[in-house]
Amino acid sequence: MSKAARTYVAVFGGYRCDEATAAAAEEVGRLLAEAGCIVVTGGREGVAAAASRGAQHAGGLTLGILPSRDRSEANDWVTVAVPTGLGETRNALVVMDADAVIAFPGLDGTLSEMAFALLGGAPVVSLGGWELARDGEAESRIVPADSPASAVAAALALSRSS
Amino acid sequence: MSKAARTYVAVFGGYRCDEATAAAAEEVGRLLAEAGCIVVTGGREGVAAAASRGAQHAGGLTLGILPSRDRSEANDWVTVAVPTGLGETRNALVVMDADAVIAFPGLDGTLSEMAFALLGGAPVVSLGGWELARDGEAESRIVPADSPASAVAAALALSRSS
Amino acid sequence: MSKAARTYVAVFGGYRCDEATAAAAEEVGRLLAEAGCIVVTGGREGVAAAASRGAQHAGGLTLGILPSRDRSEANDWVTVAVPTGLGETRNALVVMDADAVIAFPGLDGTLSEMAFALLGGAPVVSLGGWELARDGEAESRIVPADSPASAVAAALALSRSS
Amino acid sequence: MSKAARTYVAVFGGYRCDEATAAAAEEVGRLLAEAGCIVVTGGREGVAAAASRGAQHAGGLTLGILPSRDRSEANDWVTVAVPTGLGETRNALVVMDADAVIAFPGLDGTLSEMAFALLGGAPVVSLGGWELARDGEAESRIVPADSPASAVAAALALSRSS
Repeated sequence: MSKAARTYVAVFGGYRCDEATAAAAEEVGRLLAEAGCIVVTGGREGVAAAASRGAQHAGGLTLGILPSRDRSEANDWVTVAVPTGLGETRNALVVMDADAVIAFPGLDGTLSEMAFALLGGAPVVSLGGWELARDGEAESRIVPADSPASAVAAALALSRSS
Repeated sequence: MSKAARTYVAVFGGYRCDEATAAAAEEVGRLLAEAGCIVVTGGREGVAAAASRGAQHAGGLTLGILPSRDRSEANDWVTVAVPTGLGETRNALVVMDADAVIAFPGLDGTLSEMAFALLGGAPVVSLGGWELARDGEAESRIVPADSPASAVAAALALSRSS
Repeated sequence: MSKAARTYVAVFGGYRCDEATAAAAEEVGRLLAEAGCIVVTGGREGVAAAASRGAQHAGGLTLGILPSRDRSEANDWVTVAVPTGLGETRNALVVMDADAVIAFPGLDGTLSEMAFALLGGAPVVSLGGWELARDGEAESRIVPADSPASAVAAALALSRSS
Repeated sequence: MSKAARTYVAVFGGYRCDEATAAAAEEVGRLLAEAGCIVVTGGREGVAAAASRGAQHAGGLTLGILPSRDRSEANDWVTVAVPTGLGETRNALVVMDADAVIAFPGLDGTLSEMAFALLGGAPVVSLGGWELARDGEAESRIVPADSPASAVAAALALSRSS
């Protein structure tokens, strides 16, 4: 399949996550892989590891954009690891030019990834965590989802490559 | 005055802003300069230009971290311009290791700067705009202020260099 | 094959190149793919395109680290494209943590990639172009090669993953 | 003096240097400051520290572009410190849009700074160290100098701001 036909979806969330969140992230990864998407993550633990595991077990290709200079920092389910040496600034690259992103609950790094996704114009689907408002109005560009299946369906429907 | 004695405060907000916001940003710049701080901005228009103008008119030193490779992109009140060629990713550098940050209303770029300030552990003082909550609870690390004077007072009181 | 078993080899050189150089780069890409390596390039024209084409035609996986924010900038033989928005500064990332690099003739960008490869400790195999000396002594860490086959053989023999 | 009237000259070389080199770098810094230039360095030890010391003792303004996220990493003679968190990739920023650069002997990091200076079109004046040739011809854009005074004179004469 040619590069032009591939859809890249970034999945991000906490570096630490509970079992229910990990299961949901793994399911998101699996569904994205089954839809033929390349799953992009920050390449490390928590939500990134679970989503990559789900995608790779379903035969998908996963891309991990790492903070350090060291490829071995990637989790075991990253097909292609990209060391950046940018530290947390690499969060901007995780979502750069993504066709859509799916956000799980997380901390400040997750917030920065939501910000850069919005800045870059990617559709943002949220499975909880950060809620953003500006001047008293909820941010309308963030699409809430209540399950892995609905998150993936929304991401694919809104995807810039579709 | 030695480097170690200087306090760096980042000021950010919209690339476009109304006159009242510009006046407030200019006042913040002036007060920070009078307190001996180096004022760090993204070096371009709107809030960044107003804050730099206020600081430079008060004899302060201003630092502009630019998105492009071209120093001439800086506004006229930037004392030291740093071209980065990083595009919007340079937002991470505007707040990196700041002793405190003051946020004005702005769009996605402003949100990314708030996120990186929180991620880096800098005290964040807000003069309006983005409101953040997580799992239903307002983000408690953001300190609201209702005037330039109270914003600067809070930033200096919470500053990591104080 | 697990990530840990993959070898990443960066191939770089001129943005423009003559037909003989393109043919050699394509051959290098093919041989690397046949050896099971992931071929990393800057993702655009000239040597990068030829090496990616050779690798992809041989069934290999190619990674393109792009200067712009726009994935569509990648050439047609990049399997996984990584937009960075870093401009030419992304040259540092093309060779970061590579197990080995193969340099073709090129201009200043190629020189910067050789420098970062040396800085990062990767074995550097050269098929011509830049010659470096320091204080009157030729740089001994650069391994000259006179054919695609000998370049790939040297890169694999010296590879940090071997 | 307005920003537009300032000339930025980057000075770089080894992280470690002998006393004669340190004395020459200090003299370069002093002469650049006396000419009204802002001296840009990587902000750390060796040549960067010596050049900054010379410039600051002469009343000049020095800018240090740091590899880490931590401003305190700067040497004592940096007036304005810019943490980047980019590691060695920050070498590209040290010379970005410089009006001219002066290279002292150094290792791979110094080579990368020469490469990015050439790539960006800055005049490069060399006080020894790396010698570059391409396809058998010495790189003609590098201007050799044999003393601090002649290096500074050449940098100012060739400066893009002059």
